Parts: sequence; C-alpha cells; structure tokens
Amino acid sequence: MIELYTSATPNGWKASVTLEELGLPYEVHAIDLMQGAQKTPGFLAMNPNGRIPVIRDREADDFTVFESGAIMIYLAEKAGRLMPSDAKGRSRVIQWLMFQMGGLGPMMGQANVFYRYMPEKIDVAIKRYQGESARLLSVLDGRLAGHEYLAGEYSIADIANWCWARTASWSGVDLEPYTHLKRWIDQIAERPAAQAGIKVPYDLAEMLAKTKGKETGSAAERFAKGARSIVNTGEDGK
Amino acid sequence: MIELYTSATPNGWKASVTLEELGLPYEVHAIDLMQGAQKTPGFLAMNPNGRIPVIRDREADDFTVFESGAIMIYLAEKAGRLMPSDAKGRSRVIQWLMFQMGGLGPMMGQANVFYRYMPEKIDVAIKRYQGESARLLSVLDGRLAGHEYLAGEYSIADIANWCWARTASWSGVDLEPYTHLKRWIDQIAERPAAQAGIKVPYDLAEMLAKTKGKETGSAAERFAKGARSIVNTGEDGK
Repeated sequence: MIELYTSATPNGWKASVTLEELGLPYEVHAIDLMQGAQKTPGFLAMNPNGRIPVIRDREADDFTVFESGAIMIYLAEKAGRLMPSDAKGRSRVIQWLMFQMGGLGPMMGQANVFYRYMPEKIDVAIKRYQGESARLLSVLDGRLAGHEYLAGEYSIADIANWCWARTASWSGVDLEPYTHLKRWIDQIAERPAAQAGIKVPYDLAEMLAKTKGKETGSAAERFAKGARSIVNTGEDGK
Repeated sequence: MIELYTSATPNGWKASVTLEELGLPYEVHAIDLMQGAQKTPGFLAMNPNGRIPVIRDREADDFTVFESGAIMIYLAEKAGRLMPSDAKGRSRVIQWLMFQMGGLGPMMGQANVFYRYMPEKIDVAIKRYQGESARLLSVLDGRLAGHEYLAGEYSIADIANWCWARTASWSGVDLEPYTHLKRWIDQIAERPAAQAGIKVPYDLAEMLAKTKGKETGSAAERFAKGARSIVNTGEDGK
C-alpha cells in the first residue's frame, strides 16, 4: 500500500495517474494548499520543501519520496512497468521526464502565476512565460509528429508531460496549432487510468471546463484567488 | 569516449563536473549560445529543445542524451558511481536531483532573467524569483545542517545543486544566512573534479569574481548583454 499526499494540480496528478496506470493500491491524503497543510511540521518532515505530491511506501518501511518526477521513477521501478529496463530505453524516458520537470512544468507554472494569480498584470512576464510555454509545447508537437508516444512505449514521460500539456488553456496558451500534440493528449485522455488519476483528490475537470475560453467566471476566480494566496511574492519567503 | 556539447552555464557544468568526477574521457564541443549554435539543424537533431548540455556516447552507437539531469543519471549508471544502486539510496539521490531540476534551477534562472537580463526592471518579478530562490537555498541549508551531503554519500544530487547554489550572487541572492550550505559549497569547491568541471568549456570564474557585489562592470555587462539576446520574451518564440 502506498500513501499519497496530494492536491488537485498537475504535479499531484502525475503521481495519481502513475499509481492508477500501475494498478498499485494507494490511499489518498488530500492536502489543502490554501490552508498551508504543506507547511506543517508533519508534512515538512516528509518533504522539507513543503510541496505536494509526496508518497510513503508502507511496504518499504514507510520510505518517503518527494518531487513528482522522483515519485514516478520510484513507482515505475517498483512495479517494473511504464519505463524500460535497458539503459537506452530508460534514458529516453528520463530525458523526456526531465524536459517536463525542468521546462514545461516550471514555465507553465510561471505563466499561471502571472496570467492568473498575480494581482498586478505584468505584460512582459505574461508574454515571456506564455511564449516559452508555447515553444515547449511545440517541441512536444514536433516529437509527436514522428512518434506515437514521447519515448518508445507509453511511459511515465507521457504521463508527466500530459498532466501539464492538457491544462494549457489555464495558462492562456492555445493548443490549436499543435495537431500532433492534440492527437496525443486526446489519446491519453481515453485511458481509464488517466481519467481516474486526474480526479484525485477531487474532480477539478468541471471547473476547468467552465473557465475554458474566458478569463473570469466564478469557479475560476475562486480557484485563482486561493492560488494567489500561496504564490511566493518574495515578501515573506513562504 | 563521450562527446559533450556545452556552454559556460550551471546546467553545462552539471555535465562536465560529473564527467570529471567519474574520470570518463570526453571531448568538448563549445556551443556559442549568443550565435544561436543551439538552434542549428544539427544541434536540434540531437536535442529538439535547442538547449545545452547534450552528450553523445561513442561507445554506445552514438547514443544521444539531452537534459542535464538525464545526462547525470545516464553517466552515473554507466560508470556505476555517484549514485547508489539500491532502490532507496537511488531514490534519495533522484529526489534531490529533481529538487534542483524542477525548483532551484528554474527559479534561479528566472531570477537571473529579471535581475540581470531583462531590459526593464520589474520589481515584482525580481522579488518573486529572488525570494523563491532564497527559500529553496534555505531548504538545502536545512538539509545540510544534519547531513554532510544531500543524499548519503557525495552524489550527482550534490553536483547538480552545487552548480547552481554557488552562483547565487549572480542571481542577487545572499548566501550569508546559510552557514551549512556555505560549508557544503566550500567543501565541494575543494574537489579537483569540481574545479576542473566549472572551467568547461572556458573559465568563467574570473568574470563572476569581478562582478561579485556589484551590478555593473564591463565583464558582467558584456555577459548580461549576450544573455539578454537569448531570453525568450515571447515575441518570436525562440
């Protein structure tokens, strides 16, 4: 049994979709970011960085893993699936996983901060992060033009990038130009494990659907207002 | 023999310090970012994301690896060093490597963009990224208060975070409050492999020393001007 500490965010879904795909039994602990549940002493003892997701593996002396990318590798190796075991195949998966960890995730995350959460609208920053997100999505699109999946068979690299790419409209980035990426997003969205994983710890899909194509709307505004409260503005270093 | 395509940046040094520590023979190809050498068709064939570093392993049918974090894992596994082979030990190293890939690197990178390279000085963005960088450095400091290295023995997790943390003054972040982090930075700086790795493909140390504590200075200005030319402002999606 795996314990999963998570919230309804792309990084959280990376863990829950992986667990669903692997068919590993897991128990969900919803972490309320707006209430600062990720900054309590108990949580910081699991992850000193105060971020979700975190897993605890009860079958391995309560071994704790933080950082979504590290969780995915740990689970894939534990189950012996979603990542090849040969050196080259493994590396290809890790390369595209790192692309998401160091590129797509942080850049879409910053687009969200400046486009959605920051009280001031700073055009230079919004443009930079939406531009960089679009560029990274176009890199995925180019890769998927010639490959069904990012790195061989369906893998944790696909899950990681899918969990972010599918939320592009929330970052204010249009997916229309990226036909191969859209094909792949739709293809993965058909998978029962993906559908189940993105409803953990609760179903945010309806809210996102409501906000599609418009900047305001009650559900989106509520969500953005909450998210704004946890953005590090550098004022208090939280 | 490994071919290394790189530039004098923290991500580039992650690869060269790892190669030096492992004692693997390698050949350096300096990539001139200001000239756009990372966007040529030949380079994009190796890494469609157009970023350094990239390695090509001549001993493995010219197998190509992009993303600095993926390169470090590939090399550590190839040499069987700098990362434990047991599941828990490996995972601890990967967790702190991911912390750098998804946190420290991107946030210090954004601090550099807004503090050093953007023509406009946007206080909100500078404060956000310097604040988030300082918070992440304090997480490392806390970890190092109770541990000699980040994840067991000296590993690729240390190299990855060290290559970024040591450049904090360039991001305008003061390391003084972080005594444990400073102890660890100095300790790794003593290693001959670290000293050699950060001179690849050329020695930037003197330039950084010159700019320490001041925002301007001819070497720093030249460097910042060049870097500014490759920042994605969202205008042309480069």
